[in-house]
Amino acid sequence: MKNLKRTRRYALPVSIVMVLIGWIAVPALAADPLGSWNDGEAKQSIIEFVSKVSKQGSSDFVPVEERIATFDNDGTLWAEQPIYFQLLFAIDRVKALAPQHPEWTEKEPFASLLKGDVKGALADGMKSVVEIIMATHAGMTTAEFETIVSDWIATARHPTTKRPCTEMVYQPMLELLDYLRVNGFKTFIVSGGGIEFMRPWTEKVYGIPPEQVIGSSIKVKFEMRDGTPVLVRLPELDFYDDKEGKPVAIHQQIGRRPIAAFGNSDGDLQMLQWTTAGKGPRFALYVHHTDAEREWAYDRKSSFGRLDKGLDEAKKNGWTVVDMKQDWKVIYPYEAR
Amino acid sequence: MKNLKRTRRYALPVSIVMVLIGWIAVPALAADPLGSWNDGEAKQSIIEFVSKVSKQGSSDFVPVEERIATFDNDGTLWAEQPIYFQLLFAIDRVKALAPQHPEWTEKEPFASLLKGDVKGALADGMKSVVEIIMATHAGMTTAEFETIVSDWIATARHPTTKRPCTEMVYQPMLELLDYLRVNGFKTFIVSGGGIEFMRPWTEKVYGIPPEQVIGSSIKVKFEMRDGTPVLVRLPELDFYDDKEGKPVAIHQQIGRRPIAAFGNSDGDLQMLQWTTAGKGPRFALYVHHTDAEREWAYDRKSSFGRLDKGLDEAKKNGWTVVDMKQDWKVIYPYEAR
Repeated sequence: MKNLKRTRRYALPVSIVMVLIGWIAVPALAADPLGSWNDGEAKQSIIEFVSKVSKQGSSDFVPVEERIATFDNDGTLWAEQPIYFQLLFAIDRVKALAPQHPEWTEKEPFASLLKGDVKGALADGMKSVVEIIMATHAGMTTAEFETIVSDWIATARHPTTKRPCTEMVYQPMLELLDYLRVNGFKTFIVSGGGIEFMRPWTEKVYGIPPEQVIGSSIKVKFEMRDGTPVLVRLPELDFYDDKEGKPVAIHQQIGRRPIAAFGNSDGDLQMLQWTTAGKGPRFALYVHHTDAEREWAYDRKSSFGRLDKGLDEAKKNGWTVVDMKQDWKVIYPYEAR
Repeated sequence: MKNLKRTRRYALPVSIVMVLIGWIAVPALAADPLGSWNDGEAKQSIIEFVSKVSKQGSSDFVPVEERIATFDNDGTLWAEQPIYFQLLFAIDRVKALAPQHPEWTEKEPFASLLKGDVKGALADGMKSVVEIIMATHAGMTTAEFETIVSDWIATARHPTTKRPCTEMVYQPMLELLDYLRVNGFKTFIVSGGGIEFMRPWTEKVYGIPPEQVIGSSIKVKFEMRDGTPVLVRLPELDFYDDKEGKPVAIHQQIGRRPIAAFGNSDGDLQMLQWTTAGKGPRFALYVHHTDAEREWAYDRKSSFGRLDKGLDEAKKNGWTVVDMKQDWKVIYPYEAR
């Protein structure tokens, strides 16, 4: 048996080798897989849940294939202040495309944006956002858009911290993603953000491959161009993955109810309700932004990532609420270095 | 190291253990992982492709995470004659629901169906099919529909072979799915059939989990009923996953272009075009139904699974075409026992 194993080692899929190495290495290299979490109720509740569902023979044991965990992105895995990072992208795109659209200097919301007045541009709320998104996210092939996003994310800086947006992810959540995966969970993103805005970088940043990223989308159309098939992005909403949309998208794209869900706003409430309404052990967690010094402090009245009804529901249902200021030793990976 | 491994064995995810056992067992138990395939061009082309993309250091090597393979279902993984099995299901549902719909005895396409005249009921083509689908697939929660499908698939018999539909899958294709997975591929279904008609049984029958099943869908709506969230199925088409729809769905749900695609009809043509248009090594295969004795023989003029333009394109592009009669030693698993 030993020889057989050795001679056929080349056939072992790389992903399995990596998982095995990770699994063997974990106890030796990292005594605490959630090292950036302070000891407390939040951390304890995570460890208890993961331990009981992954312990063979336990009455709460959940087979590996059913260990589905879904994460919101904006405000849950990375920051979302002072505005969603995808809006920063859209604003940069408006500026880049402005020479081709002389009419924008007179037309809202573009005119305000080009003058640097973001607040004014967004005064109309979702109507303005949709107009900006459609003008900047449609009209090209999917391959072209992927390049535009990849180029932007590689160089764009956050307006206040001046850090790349992909460095403004939460170190404790990165550890949580890893901890879940080491324990057999399949981790998904379920975000109100654009699916094609996330997929070019989620694998590298979060270890979440494109096929496990769910988000809002616009329609695309198959076309043959000089004998080559392309997918063209159309200025028409396909799916808005927020609130009631999240359980719908989970159902359509995963086809299994998660056993654990993680969010930070009222937009995630229905996902947490849907997750916890299933049979057997369930886990729901809200990240509560309480740290005005190291991150931002906002909840019931914020225009981005409002957490109002969700906070009440969390209390009523005994869901875990992370107090960022108290529960997290560090916020961003660069603080941990 | 050995001790560490032993003491922590309980933490190794079950799926990995199973893959490892399968991998170790393969050379000992089955010298030929494609044992139901006759030697010939089709089998050879599969082995050559899989070998080159999984051979580290080869110029054609493809990293594991990009080894995506997509399979049509009807006519590619299981039979589709004399009519799609999902239509058998729908007809059985019409009969079961008829007592609640006295008006159906006078109303087409239901009246013909209830008299046993399937051909008459489907004379109007897609219009009738859509009416039958909406009347039988909507109006209940997703959980209720899952139970209805699971109950039906457990007992329904094929009209001519009298076998359960899940036994009318193709043994050579089951071996191909396994062979790809052992070599690091992630296997997906991309079918014109209903996504929720497939998911309750694809994991057991094909080893393909729900989150890797893509298909046509109707809309669902999130609702709170007495404080419990449910998803209600609406009589409205959400997505038709056929022809141009297949690359669109692959893009929206997987977010990566497959490197290998498998189909049997013109409905799969765009999926094969999209797959083979990517850079690097690509593989496309058509199952050609040529065996009137053991299965069915049909192609350019069939109303189910028509293969006309696809056959020409396959020839032009050098895609693999499986001649079922020549290339497959057995068709169904029960013949192999």
